[in-house]
Amino acid sequence: MTSAAFDVLGIGNAIVDVITRADDAFLAAHALTKGSMMLIDEARAEALYAAMGPGIEVSGGSCGNTMAGIASFGGKGAYVGKVKQDQLGGVFGHDLKSIGVSFDTPQASSGPSTARCLIMVTPDAQRTMNTYLGACTGLGPDDIDPRLVSAAQVTYVEGYLWDAPEAKKAVLKAFDAAHAAGRLVSITLSDSFCVGRYRDEFRALIRDQVDILFGNEAEITSLYEVDSFDKALEATRKEAKIAALTRSEKGSVVIKGGETHAVPAAPVSKIVDTTGAGDLYAAGFLFGFTRGKPLAECARLGGIAAAEIISHVGARPETPLKDLI
Amino acid sequence: MTSAAFDVLGIGNAIVDVITRADDAFLAAHALTKGSMMLIDEARAEALYAAMGPGIEVSGGSCGNTMAGIASFGGKGAYVGKVKQDQLGGVFGHDLKSIGVSFDTPQASSGPSTARCLIMVTPDAQRTMNTYLGACTGLGPDDIDPRLVSAAQVTYVEGYLWDAPEAKKAVLKAFDAAHAAGRLVSITLSDSFCVGRYRDEFRALIRDQVDILFGNEAEITSLYEVDSFDKALEATRKEAKIAALTRSEKGSVVIKGGETHAVPAAPVSKIVDTTGAGDLYAAGFLFGFTRGKPLAECARLGGIAAAEIISHVGARPETPLKDLI
Repeated sequence: MTSAAFDVLGIGNAIVDVITRADDAFLAAHALTKGSMMLIDEARAEALYAAMGPGIEVSGGSCGNTMAGIASFGGKGAYVGKVKQDQLGGVFGHDLKSIGVSFDTPQASSGPSTARCLIMVTPDAQRTMNTYLGACTGLGPDDIDPRLVSAAQVTYVEGYLWDAPEAKKAVLKAFDAAHAAGRLVSITLSDSFCVGRYRDEFRALIRDQVDILFGNEAEITSLYEVDSFDKALEATRKEAKIAALTRSEKGSVVIKGGETHAVPAAPVSKIVDTTGAGDLYAAGFLFGFTRGKPLAECARLGGIAAAEIISHVGARPETPLKDLI
Repeated sequence: MTSAAFDVLGIGNAIVDVITRADDAFLAAHALTKGSMMLIDEARAEALYAAMGPGIEVSGGSCGNTMAGIASFGGKGAYVGKVKQDQLGGVFGHDLKSIGVSFDTPQASSGPSTARCLIMVTPDAQRTMNTYLGACTGLGPDDIDPRLVSAAQVTYVEGYLWDAPEAKKAVLKAFDAAHAAGRLVSITLSDSFCVGRYRDEFRALIRDQVDILFGNEAEITSLYEVDSFDKALEATRKEAKIAALTRSEKGSVVIKGGETHAVPAAPVSKIVDTTGAGDLYAAGFLFGFTRGKPLAECARLGGIAAAEIISHVGARPETPLKDLI
């Protein structure tokens, strides 16, 4: 690849997480499906917040977490996402810029407030996410600067953006700009329910445009509507250029044409909160990839980042990832 | 004591903590004194925030932390403090009310924003605090309802309130209301620099009004301007009714007239962040005290709560304190 100002440009829903501990009874009482991400409106967000326990606020958003991971490895990243000009919007911006991620998307001055994700962490370390998209719905094609896109080796986006129609258009504009500049594009499937909502569009995108695909076992089996990981792997191999598929404690499998690299998970002494595991896997993988590492090494770096993130509450690294490799 | 709706009413500066990790070089570069609490204005708060690393936002405020601790033990508390009607004000209120602490102080609808404390945690687990008081300066006597004061066995306040002149008047109104109702009043000295600012007023208050005094070694030696803990202890004994004095890893000493109870610190496997140690000691002590426990047992409960809080980042309990006793 030709030299680039940025390793990765991330486009995502700019969200502040509000993390609390909850038990299974709380999930049941509020009709929450453990392990999933559910979209909620403002009224529901307020009602659920009033019902839940004390929280900690920490910047999140799947792609934001990935960009924080890339920066923590020492990579150079830029981010595009929409917050409002409010306190939580200020927090989100600070937390990216203070680690060296370039973030210049104009803040919304009116309309809904900065997005929040109410995350319940159960004693089994699973997370259940309830996202109020708020200002994220204001992200659109005008927020994509083709010069920024062409300055990044890889443009990486979250499937979650399909939940905001204008944001999807922004992604498609960015993909075109990236390819026009000879750059690569990458997407994460985000969530098996998200795959259910946009299966056909995602499959077409993977066939026609995506250079690097990320997904976990539930997402990829949902995408190809098959009942086993092996079947999903072969279906993916026919349609994707490069795919990095994660399997929790079983590690990950990377495929590229006829190549298959199965890489074990990195050891974790205690799993505390699985929020952000996939986001950080993508960070490690893309950090390695943009440095020209072999695919198996990219997967190993992804595993190291995922192991760090699930060892504590919150989806941004506590230990500098560059110290772990 | 006659029966009361609340065990403790706390009055304090209502602050959201913004916690980051920093090294000694960062403290030096920004002229910060390790271990201290420094008051800063809004411009300085913004400059320091821009310079610091990514943070987590979590409700704090010395007295707010104490009330969270009392609730975590299963005690019944009420809180008086001033936030603005903004996102961080909403966070602060939620985090108290969601654990059962009564909190009805009207939010400010204009004026400065909800207070923030920028906390740098260094690798030695020390915390260095930089407080922008914001909306806290709007707390005043009108926010004190004598019926609420008389409904609590103990009214507990932080010395930090002396930094806001109207808040001090609110405290004095509350102390009068408490004593008029046959209730007790308690104060923490908060910080050795705070003692330096208000030494004479604090000493007069302790002689004339305070029933239970909290302070650490640095604060109490500053209060009586002596060079050893033992000298401070004897000076305190002459002026205070009951005093609970903390000494970090050496535990605490409680005095009441001729009685002296030295209680060892509770064991901690790893000290991560000392923020809130004194606040939580007060929580355990007051929880025990309002249940009629002997003074040595009150001190032991204080030590248990302090040990929990310094084992993780943040100054509110992660493990329910009632599960630890």
